[in-house]
Amino acid sequence: MKINVVESVLKANDAVARENRRRMDAAGVLAINIMSAPGSGKTALLEKTIPALKPEQLCAVLVGDLQTTRDAERLEGNAASITQINTGRGCHLSATQVAEGLDSLDLKGIDFLFIENVGNMVCPAAVDLGEHLRAVLLSVPEGDDKVAKYPTLFQPASVILLTKVDLLGLLDYERDKVYEDVSRVNTSAPLIELSPKTGQGMDRWLAWLQEQRRQRAIEQNAS
Amino acid sequence: MKINVVESVLKANDAVARENRRRMDAAGVLAINIMSAPGSGKTALLEKTIPALKPEQLCAVLVGDLQTTRDAERLEGNAASITQINTGRGCHLSATQVAEGLDSLDLKGIDFLFIENVGNMVCPAAVDLGEHLRAVLLSVPEGDDKVAKYPTLFQPASVILLTKVDLLGLLDYERDKVYEDVSRVNTSAPLIELSPKTGQGMDRWLAWLQEQRRQRAIEQNAS
Repeated sequence: MKINVVESVLKANDAVARENRRRMDAAGVLAINIMSAPGSGKTALLEKTIPALKPEQLCAVLVGDLQTTRDAERLEGNAASITQINTGRGCHLSATQVAEGLDSLDLKGIDFLFIENVGNMVCPAAVDLGEHLRAVLLSVPEGDDKVAKYPTLFQPASVILLTKVDLLGLLDYERDKVYEDVSRVNTSAPLIELSPKTGQGMDRWLAWLQEQRRQRAIEQNAS
Repeated sequence: MKINVVESVLKANDAVARENRRRMDAAGVLAINIMSAPGSGKTALLEKTIPALKPEQLCAVLVGDLQTTRDAERLEGNAASITQINTGRGCHLSATQVAEGLDSLDLKGIDFLFIENVGNMVCPAAVDLGEHLRAVLLSVPEGDDKVAKYPTLFQPASVILLTKVDLLGLLDYERDKVYEDVSRVNTSAPLIELSPKTGQGMDRWLAWLQEQRRQRAIEQNAS
């Protein structure tokens, strides 16, 4: 009973997700679902990414949080548009919440839509929001064992970002373990080491984003 | 429909949780549900706590994880008994999983049962496992905004542990914000700053545990 209901909820979600993707494709927007544990640096990454893409590329952001508008406030001023979605007790964003978020945006002229999911390494992984790509963050202080412990998050990642690498020398951390665990669950996603604080690795992340847009444009022209 | 099903699942869970509590009360075991984001240091805390309580007090541990037995392996040798519960895609432990864990333990002679929940700041908060107390961890590198963003986790906490305080000088972190946010959501739980790595604050945490056992014994004798 429980499983059937959960499955039908996910099916309904997936239909909305497909419609979200169609809307964004029609507007030429590339949507990236950003997922990680709480405090891995999703907002810090966007604080540095959005200004770096300007003025060539315009970004919009949907931010999911249980409570508060703190992340949205941190991002104000740089993105073309920011919409905060409070999920209450909800442990992830849903496609319907993203659809409502899209209603609040003027998608014209937007190149990237960043969807900052609720900080959670489990539940968001199962829920399609209509994104094109998934960026999964893992911060150094969380420990070098997290890829093996949360494979369902890392398996479908389009890119894996190892954040807060400026702390590597200060912590007992075996970076090789992370690469080894990633190679077991996901052989296609690049792993980018970065620190929005020092700027390390940001060029590689920005180049990856640009490359995804280029590929997307080629695919859309071909179809 | 969805809500009704979720409610009835939670009701069934609560009945099992009550039975778990009854079993542990009968055996004189004090059970502590340990919750936090992934990588806040739940296992590191237990690695230092369990040996420090010996030989006066014996501990058993139930460890919840999606995959792997790494946490259980880290704790081997010190606890009287360790049971790993793999939840697969499950985002929290359930009372039934804990009941099965209890079946695997000999509760006689056990003073503390530590239940290390799945690393997740959202879902575990809603689920009673039959524990007597909740210890909620928050590590410094996660940022000083997490109490406000995840109030449902911190509201029912019996104690709040600010971990990895050895990193305080290295990060932009406003400790006062945490105290302020805690005072808004939970006025009864002590906030203990600690670092299992350096030992800072461990005496206060151990004293808190001992005090809870003393109070529990008085309550049980009175009833």
